[in-house]
Amino acid sequence: MEQGEKPETGSRRKPLLRALAGEPMDRPAVWLMRQAGRYLPEYRALRQDATNFLDMCLTPERAVEATLQPIRRFGMDGAILFCDILVVPFALGRSVAFREGEGPVLEPLRTRKEAASLVTDGVAERLGAVYAAITEIQSSLSPETALIGFAGAPWTVATYMVEGGTNRDFAAVKRWALGDEEGFDVLIDRLVDATVAHLSAQITAGAEVVQLFDSWAGVLPERAFRRYVIAPTARIVTALKTRHPGVPVIGFPRGAGLMYRAYVMETGVSAIGLDSAVPCAIAQRTLQSLVPVQGNLDPLLLVVGGAAMAEAVAAIRASFGGGPFVFNLGHGVLPQTPVENVERLVELVRCAP
Amino acid sequence: MEQGEKPETGSRRKPLLRALAGEPMDRPAVWLMRQAGRYLPEYRALRQDATNFLDMCLTPERAVEATLQPIRRFGMDGAILFCDILVVPFALGRSVAFREGEGPVLEPLRTRKEAASLVTDGVAERLGAVYAAITEIQSSLSPETALIGFAGAPWTVATYMVEGGTNRDFAAVKRWALGDEEGFDVLIDRLVDATVAHLSAQITAGAEVVQLFDSWAGVLPERAFRRYVIAPTARIVTALKTRHPGVPVIGFPRGAGLMYRAYVMETGVSAIGLDSAVPCAIAQRTLQSLVPVQGNLDPLLLVVGGAAMAEAVAAIRASFGGGPFVFNLGHGVLPQTPVENVERLVELVRCAP
Repeated sequence: MEQGEKPETGSRRKPLLRALAGEPMDRPAVWLMRQAGRYLPEYRALRQDATNFLDMCLTPERAVEATLQPIRRFGMDGAILFCDILVVPFALGRSVAFREGEGPVLEPLRTRKEAASLVTDGVAERLGAVYAAITEIQSSLSPETALIGFAGAPWTVATYMVEGGTNRDFAAVKRWALGDEEGFDVLIDRLVDATVAHLSAQITAGAEVVQLFDSWAGVLPERAFRRYVIAPTARIVTALKTRHPGVPVIGFPRGAGLMYRAYVMETGVSAIGLDSAVPCAIAQRTLQSLVPVQGNLDPLLLVVGGAAMAEAVAAIRASFGGGPFVFNLGHGVLPQTPVENVERLVELVRCAP
Repeated sequence: MEQGEKPETGSRRKPLLRALAGEPMDRPAVWLMRQAGRYLPEYRALRQDATNFLDMCLTPERAVEATLQPIRRFGMDGAILFCDILVVPFALGRSVAFREGEGPVLEPLRTRKEAASLVTDGVAERLGAVYAAITEIQSSLSPETALIGFAGAPWTVATYMVEGGTNRDFAAVKRWALGDEEGFDVLIDRLVDATVAHLSAQITAGAEVVQLFDSWAGVLPERAFRRYVIAPTARIVTALKTRHPGVPVIGFPRGAGLMYRAYVMETGVSAIGLDSAVPCAIAQRTLQSLVPVQGNLDPLLLVVGGAAMAEAVAAIRASFGGGPFVFNLGHGVLPQTPVENVERLVELVRCAP
């Protein structure tokens, strides 16, 4: 956005912001989760120069370059900051390492006492490099492209902090969350505060939209889903809407299934990200009637390409094209995705229906 | 069942069969997925003597003993055969190995040609040991306890066959299934035939109920869910109902979320297994109105025990107790489950509400 231009008028020119404001569109706005990443040869070259993955996220010039790479190639309507949800535990003083082929490794946090000792005050100070990158990206984007900030939602970030990394069965974190609600609330509360600080700083630095990734929302029974997914998300949304009115917050409670509608109605999110398992007709009827929807091509169909991808894109556009809608995947771009399939996808989304 | 007794009258005395027939019950029938298993010290002792896990499944005396162990301790209303869903690929001639701490390892099947070469004719002959175990279990059960047979649903078994084991992202199997529907149908068709043969032989040997486990149903987009979950399940259910009228088929499409209702309406299953993420009020309104429901305590709450488990059991009973209902978990008993929590759970399910 140019200095001195009025935010509302300026931002409304961008297709992604128009779509998220519920305006009718000739063609859907489009961006892809993990559009910056290993499937791009220029990303792999950039990554080779960095000492580790956190260094990619916390060195502004690398984060800026990684963010802009897919925009240069494909001209997406949204540029999502290159970063990771685990910068928040890092900023909270936890050790976070990314080992090749292993996923993230964190020092496991297992007690209420440890959770209570987390200091949320300095989070935004410790992540200054992220906000510096955002300001620089914003100055490089065309007036058509919106800049998207993001964070992990408290439940999902907590799973990594408690398990010490990725984990198939979530035994440690669920045992704590289901067996000691008040103790686990201490961790969730700290993460709510840290997430608000982190997203708020991203918006101040130039993010025009933010997305909350709750990648593991689907593993909780209803009571826990309400307590650890819906309630913290509602608090984050309320805080952001108060501090930054008009900035849309997209919620993405992956795998929420039959809880999607309660999530939309009770969190106050501005738009809802749909995973690939969500049937479009049901989402159109029960979710798009409430807020703009975003999604939900299966990332494997982007790997497959060809007629299967084209048919799926057409089906998604046919379901959602008549209402407020942002085209996206139902999960992140996979490393084995052919670059030409992404090019083709963007063409398919933008062609006349 | 006694020789000469009429099946219908005899079987209807058993609480599990009454519940699955939709009869009103004073207290819910109860059994637990993976109720025979590593959390029981007597199972670990039995397992130590077996050369490997397949040997446990395919040696009748071991399978009989493992099946009966939880019945002796807890007096469940259902005794589920001790076996594994991967005996079907084994009977189809694929190599299947279980390595400690690693999960199953199969020779990956990746082409239509390999799928077409699978011979389904001799499946039931090769699994004679399983049916021998069933006949022996049936003769040992009290007249109150129903014997449950089971198989993996075609989609879930296919994921193991194509990936070569358990896999987090299902990249190989989804790539095939989404990109080459007619080729993948060849594999699914073979699995439908093999599954019908296997379940039919179980019923003939003495199983009074069967359950189809579709553990990975939740990873498919709608079109693929209809093609690889709903359609094959409908074919299996139709074949079994024709050959064995009156034998209930419980479908368990774990993670089906917003597709649960279509699954129930379009497969013809007699009852529906709910995973732990399914909200009870929605299931009561939209699923229990169609068929008996089974579920859905989170297995981690059985690990946790205490007040958290008691409250969750009360909530599930309050939601489902007024209609046709079988109490179960939303997934299998975990190895770290304290035995005394299972005892307590059965008491809680059976006490006056």
